Amino acid sequence: MCRWLAAYTGSPILLEKALYSPAHSLIDQSLHSELGAEATNGDGYGLGWYDDQPAPGRFRGIEPAWNDDNLRELAGHVKSHLFFAHIRAAIGSAVQQTNCHPFRHGRWLFMHNGFLDNFAAVKRDLVLAIDQSLYPEIGGHADTEVLFYLALTLGLEDDPPDAVARAIGLVEDVGYAKGVRYPFQGTIATTNGEQIWAFRYSSEGKSRSLFFTRHVPTLRELYPERTILQEVSDDAHVIVSEPMGDLPGAWNEVPESSYAVVGGGEESLHRFTVKPPARAVPVS
Amino acid sequence: MCRWLAAYTGSPILLEKALYSPAHSLIDQSLHSELGAEATNGDGYGLGWYDDQPAPGRFRGIEPAWNDDNLRELAGHVKSHLFFAHIRAAIGSAVQQTNCHPFRHGRWLFMHNGFLDNFAAVKRDLVLAIDQSLYPEIGGHADTEVLFYLALTLGLEDDPPDAVARAIGLVEDVGYAKGVRYPFQGTIATTNGEQIWAFRYSSEGKSRSLFFTRHVPTLRELYPERTILQEVSDDAHVIVSEPMGDLPGAWNEVPESSYAVVGGGEESLHRFTVKPPARAVPVS
Amino acid sequence: MCRWLAAYTGSPILLEKALYSPAHSLIDQSLHSELGAEATNGDGYGLGWYDDQPAPGRFRGIEPAWNDDNLRELAGHVKSHLFFAHIRAAIGSAVQQTNCHPFRHGRWLFMHNGFLDNFAAVKRDLVLAIDQSLYPEIGGHADTEVLFYLALTLGLEDDPPDAVARAIGLVEDVGYAKGVRYPFQGTIATTNGEQIWAFRYSSEGKSRSLFFTRHVPTLRELYPERTILQEVSDDAHVIVSEPMGDLPGAWNEVPESSYAVVGGGEESLHRFTVKPPARAVPVS
Amino acid sequence: MCRWLAAYTGSPILLEKALYSPAHSLIDQSLHSELGAEATNGDGYGLGWYDDQPAPGRFRGIEPAWNDDNLRELAGHVKSHLFFAHIRAAIGSAVQQTNCHPFRHGRWLFMHNGFLDNFAAVKRDLVLAIDQSLYPEIGGHADTEVLFYLALTLGLEDDPPDAVARAIGLVEDVGYAKGVRYPFQGTIATTNGEQIWAFRYSSEGKSRSLFFTRHVPTLRELYPERTILQEVSDDAHVIVSEPMGDLPGAWNEVPESSYAVVGGGEESLHRFTVKPPARAVPVS
Repeated sequence: MCRWLAAYTGSPILLEKALYSPAHSLIDQSLHSELGAEATNGDGYGLGWYDDQPAPGRFRGIEPAWNDDNLRELAGHVKSHLFFAHIRAAIGSAVQQTNCHPFRHGRWLFMHNGFLDNFAAVKRDLVLAIDQSLYPEIGGHADTEVLFYLALTLGLEDDPPDAVARAIGLVEDVGYAKGVRYPFQGTIATTNGEQIWAFRYSSEGKSRSLFFTRHVPTLRELYPERTILQEVSDDAHVIVSEPMGDLPGAWNEVPESSYAVVGGGEESLHRFTVKPPARAVPVS
Repeated sequence: MCRWLAAYTGSPILLEKALYSPAHSLIDQSLHSELGAEATNGDGYGLGWYDDQPAPGRFRGIEPAWNDDNLRELAGHVKSHLFFAHIRAAIGSAVQQTNCHPFRHGRWLFMHNGFLDNFAAVKRDLVLAIDQSLYPEIGGHADTEVLFYLALTLGLEDDPPDAVARAIGLVEDVGYAKGVRYPFQGTIATTNGEQIWAFRYSSEGKSRSLFFTRHVPTLRELYPERTILQEVSDDAHVIVSEPMGDLPGAWNEVPESSYAVVGGGEESLHRFTVKPPARAVPVS
Repeated sequence: MCRWLAAYTGSPILLEKALYSPAHSLIDQSLHSELGAEATNGDGYGLGWYDDQPAPGRFRGIEPAWNDDNLRELAGHVKSHLFFAHIRAAIGSAVQQTNCHPFRHGRWLFMHNGFLDNFAAVKRDLVLAIDQSLYPEIGGHADTEVLFYLALTLGLEDDPPDAVARAIGLVEDVGYAKGVRYPFQGTIATTNGEQIWAFRYSSEGKSRSLFFTRHVPTLRELYPERTILQEVSDDAHVIVSEPMGDLPGAWNEVPESSYAVVGGGEESLHRFTVKPPARAVPVS
Repeated sequence: MCRWLAAYTGSPILLEKALYSPAHSLIDQSLHSELGAEATNGDGYGLGWYDDQPAPGRFRGIEPAWNDDNLRELAGHVKSHLFFAHIRAAIGSAVQQTNCHPFRHGRWLFMHNGFLDNFAAVKRDLVLAIDQSLYPEIGGHADTEVLFYLALTLGLEDDPPDAVARAIGLVEDVGYAKGVRYPFQGTIATTNGEQIWAFRYSSEGKSRSLFFTRHVPTLRELYPERTILQEVSDDAHVIVSEPMGDLPGAWNEVPESSYAVVGGGEESLHRFTVKPPARAVPVS
């Protein structure tokens, strides 16, 4: 099962400079061919980007991403200082736009590379835990969308690491009660348009990979021929789910059970601990 | 707001004989032009049909129906003794296959021309009332899908008129509690592949129209030039949401707050009374 | 048969300000409802827009335009000083992206509200007249695409009115030879990103309508409540195929057999005369 | 570059028995997983099938085939004694229904696993060689569609091996004149609904593979547990482009530069020789 996510923050660039152009791409061309016509994650894709409008733009589709002319046109004409890209391989839920990442609420975007195990078993209880005011916003049936609305219910907009820890805590709590051995798997990226929080965690302790770029000045020294590195600002960052083979030395791995914060001048790495829901303590 | 539904039961015919061919169509050609390229309900369509397979076939799409080459091919090659057709004009929920009628569970199909008023306000309570074993089957976010699963929860497979009366009763109960003046509007058709139950009801008492054909022998006398009438059996019936102007004398209207049962040798018309949920009676 | 085209040139605005927002729309809201869910030209749509990139962006789709979430997102995030919008009702050719207007070559866009009569009869001869170097660019089978490549073959990039006059002249010449009574019908808009040329012509002399806005300062006096008029520059122009009923006094009609040039400081109206192809004169 | 084609002739079976059901599939389940979500030819697919209607049915789509609910429904409800299936990986031409195989004319279907090399260079000359009465039928821009109409022009309906030999001969003639080293590559299957002609040829002499099943009675002995083999008639045949690994002994390879004829009681293998176009011989 392979999904792919990528996030960028830095000086504004054309989206295609990250996503398409082999010679000028921020993201290595090996990725490009990997995402090409012959080995696709063909179950939908999504882009979310920030500009001077109140809410981020979003573009989602269910065709194989690299065949979509409209996506190419958009990427060739839209510039952004912070954007998310996601390619999906469906597990269970229908291939339709409303199940495509990134999910959006107000200024927030959210995407996920992984799954809630045995989602059919836990879905109803989790949906019930979503704040009633948010409930009507749910547009699809993807596990990640439910996770996003749980995190919003639990304070994502105020304290992202706490809300994600509590949302996954609830997923695990419900999952364990239903006999699911490892309820959560995956990496998550969320943003308010200024900072990106990127999490790596799984109930099993064997989480999917997550990488972020080293400092741009370092990368420029390593890869002077890569012209895009001259264009982006010193504080630019890319976060991706898969290690890019052709750029040795360019990537730092986010460790197991950790999260990174980048953007807005910040760049930090933290330990991530899931927070199970509080329970009434039986009085003996 | 115009949606359209049609149902057929009788000797097996090619679907296109009901849906396309102006000269040979069961359904009048005025409908055909009405559904043509220039005045479309462009928010999706669906077909459901029975053959010798265990479950009915279903074909749903989000393109304008009469542009869809695949739908034309299917209709030109599939024969059925009982089928449903639906064209949708969306109100609120997304234009995606999983929101297209007819909905299906086992051998049952269900479609609706109308709406649950202020669905966002009542949706959560109604979804909670759906049987937990049916909950994971919900694939979209259409009001009609929720109504269908409520009806299934309340015994559709055993007693369709009772289950539909109780499902609408619950919709009204929850709606009134949320301050919705007229919670339900529309006509409904449901079938198990042998009989069709077609309901006309609205909380307001001003329901959308519903018509069924007079006896085929009578129609043959009225319209001897219509060759399709020579092909179908004497007991064939068509139910449609809109009166067909060019065939005066061909249609009987289902009266307000009524339901019809056709197919399997039966043809009857009954009064339809909604059944509110039972409540605990306060003891004084 | 109703198609719709619109073109804008002026100070950069968000596309949605022309296409969606009822209260803030350049184009009157009566159009908006006309293009709404219930009376759609459902056979595809297209947008073409200019920014600081070498070629214009383009977005085309085959869903009903006003249901397309991606189009809405794009229109809500892309600003342009010159853009084309088109909604299509197909006549004959398939409903697919490659048949959607506007067509594009280099910096040029081209769209058409009308048709080449009996296109099947004239198509082959017209395609043969397209320059061989342009031939491989043809991506669809729409009559307008063939007309566009004929105009390019005949010098569109150097002298648009001459090339369009010669292209239609060829269409008429071939059509008459095939017994087509009125080979060409319609309005055409083409642009290089700086100026827009808009033509109104038909072989029959009964051409589809074409309108352009009066001066923005005049419009501001007429419609002071329309906030968008405060935002756009004095030299902004809109060209549309249909007169907008709710803005009396706002529109000038392009007369029969005429063309308008707007943009880049120019605004002029000219007589349009078709130029038949030169023929070898038989020597007596 | 991987495309896949399959053809069946024999007693009528549900299409899904050939295409989906791992346990009951005519075609081995290793194919099924190969065509599954994680390694798709995501550029469109097509089915063509014969029943008692005058022309074969056809279903084509541009989503990854194995995500398409409508295709699954169709395959679960349509039975046929002869059908074609094709999955496409685009090279050059747009991903749209009109470029999807099989192509159809009257009762004939035609599909191809391969390409016309440097199609942009040879396309115009080849299209010019298509009979003018067939020209308006061309609906897409795929190389295979042009090849099909050339074959029809050159007598496909009367003598398929001769027409295909002459069509490829013309492709090579035009290609060589344009400096294309190896103008044709691939396997072709065509049918009139009674027999299937399947060709394997390439200008280079290194053609893509093509296989057909051994006799059903032999297969039943080899694979007694495969229930589908009990259902199909003794004279059933399957032709596929890729060898199926899990059924050793089940497949015969069509040799280089050969064609097979199956169906209608016939089963034969012939040498295939391309026929270049006749030329005026210069008189010395």
